[in-house]
Amino acid sequence: MQVSVAEILAQSRAALLAHGAGEGQAEAVARAVARAEETGNVICGLYYLESYCVQLQSGRVNGTVVPEVSRPAPGCVRVDARFGFAQPAFARALPLAIEAARGNGVATLSVAHSHTCTSLGYFTEQIAEAGVIAMGMTNASAIVAGPGGQTPVLGTNPFAITIPGPDGPALHADFSTSAVALGRITMARAAGEAIPLGWAVDAAGNPTTDPEAALAGALQSAAGHKGWALGLMVEAFATGLTGSVNSLDVKGLKAAEGLPHGLGQFYILISPGAHDPAFADRLARVADAIAEDPGVRIPGVPRRRLDPVDVPDALWAKTLALADA
Amino acid sequence: MQVSVAEILAQSRAALLAHGAGEGQAEAVARAVARAEETGNVICGLYYLESYCVQLQSGRVNGTVVPEVSRPAPGCVRVDARFGFAQPAFARALPLAIEAARGNGVATLSVAHSHTCTSLGYFTEQIAEAGVIAMGMTNASAIVAGPGGQTPVLGTNPFAITIPGPDGPALHADFSTSAVALGRITMARAAGEAIPLGWAVDAAGNPTTDPEAALAGALQSAAGHKGWALGLMVEAFATGLTGSVNSLDVKGLKAAEGLPHGLGQFYILISPGAHDPAFADRLARVADAIAEDPGVRIPGVPRRRLDPVDVPDALWAKTLALADA
Repeated sequence: MQVSVAEILAQSRAALLAHGAGEGQAEAVARAVARAEETGNVICGLYYLESYCVQLQSGRVNGTVVPEVSRPAPGCVRVDARFGFAQPAFARALPLAIEAARGNGVATLSVAHSHTCTSLGYFTEQIAEAGVIAMGMTNASAIVAGPGGQTPVLGTNPFAITIPGPDGPALHADFSTSAVALGRITMARAAGEAIPLGWAVDAAGNPTTDPEAALAGALQSAAGHKGWALGLMVEAFATGLTGSVNSLDVKGLKAAEGLPHGLGQFYILISPGAHDPAFADRLARVADAIAEDPGVRIPGVPRRRLDPVDVPDALWAKTLALADA
Repeated sequence: MQVSVAEILAQSRAALLAHGAGEGQAEAVARAVARAEETGNVICGLYYLESYCVQLQSGRVNGTVVPEVSRPAPGCVRVDARFGFAQPAFARALPLAIEAARGNGVATLSVAHSHTCTSLGYFTEQIAEAGVIAMGMTNASAIVAGPGGQTPVLGTNPFAITIPGPDGPALHADFSTSAVALGRITMARAAGEAIPLGWAVDAAGNPTTDPEAALAGALQSAAGHKGWALGLMVEAFATGLTGSVNSLDVKGLKAAEGLPHGLGQFYILISPGAHDPAFADRLARVADAIAEDPGVRIPGVPRRRLDPVDVPDALWAKTLALADA
């Protein structure tokens, strides 16, 4: 089904409103859904909408709460989402965080106790739109075991980086510190396909190619000890520095019932101009060299916006049903 | 040969002094050498000393220059190493950077135009000793090509993280964003051994198991596009934010002759207390869960110090010869 981005936005907003979200919160979350769809990020778009609606009803997410912004130090901005959505909490704190980064040269933005932010890169992109470099980290429900182990202790704990350039981001990446994102496993299960060795272990800690066994066991870290170290860093920053809930203590993000997610996101904002006026030249030098190596590219935001978007019929029918509820 | 750490320090200092380094610079670099040896980090210890001495003589590193510290913004401390060693430049700027991190909650420390810092974790460890979280990044001579490519455009561009704990670092990791560090390839060549597929490509861009072909070709990134994105981030930060020389423009780090390295290191310092008073509890929660999974550990600083150190006979003979020059 071909659906315009405007229609995706409108129906997502309607679905969230119909399940108890306030106007501003519904708008902020619906925009993130539409943005995911127009950039081809299918896992973070309409595919997530049903769980938002179900959890608005069950109380796992609070759709009307007002986030609280504070500034515990000149370079530190904090927002307590108070178990509401991440998008409106972030939006409320962003201007102050940008101001802090410009004034100090560097700042942090902590988002505490929020619902899953779904697409971490959506947030680092917004920081970069202000001409500020953004690193982002967030935790999730525990599904990753350490190298040689079998007990899930970390979430897929993604890391994102967006570096602003003269014409949109000069570099933009958003990746799980686990071997793959959880969605790759659940999609393989739905398709009845095997997964490669190296992605996961079963409940006894043995390498597995069976997605079902992987979901009962644990994912592995990207690049072994390197991804493991990064995942631990993300956990420490996203939960420790924000004062949010450890991945170990967060139930599956799409489960209808249960305690609120209570996740944290931690962003570091860096003003390039406060550091070196010729900042952009250094990345441009690399980009020029890469341009001569066919097939290699610098990761970025997709240039082409999808509008209309090709939405699976069943998913769009579900969306309309949620909006009509 | 069993050699005490004090003797390693003394002979390294003597070798650097004999080749033209000033007192303070020789002391700072010799301490880094001794620290590498006592923690079992053989690649960054005495193994590097000869190139320091040779390059002091050739002028690739300036052993008497005075680094210049500045503070371009309240949260940004910068030190220009002026083509001298990294260790004394870092030492000169560290107190101000710690003060900035405590006052603002977060700060950056840029080291510009320095000789290779050799062990990046040596520096993040020092920041953590002040109770401040440290992320570190540095660039190097270009040897890494992008996924699908063959042209070396990035250095092995390591990333380091040290999180202070109640009793030494709670987390400490220092790893290349390439599949392996360059030393793994040169050691395989010296031993006449093949390298695994996935580490490198030859000059035509084909995967290779031959270390010689790898050195004529390019290393690959850790975990494909993930390590590639991190390596690009490190390049942008270590060169762009510090105003240092791109990896593309830096000749092999151990080559006797040539332009000075001119590398950059970029550190982000975060005060845990300015963010959340219960910071340490979140990582401890994970450590407790990991403790129940035999075989899994949190990366850290080796607890056991080697003293005396078992130094290969030929390497110690070389060290004494350098000190006696």
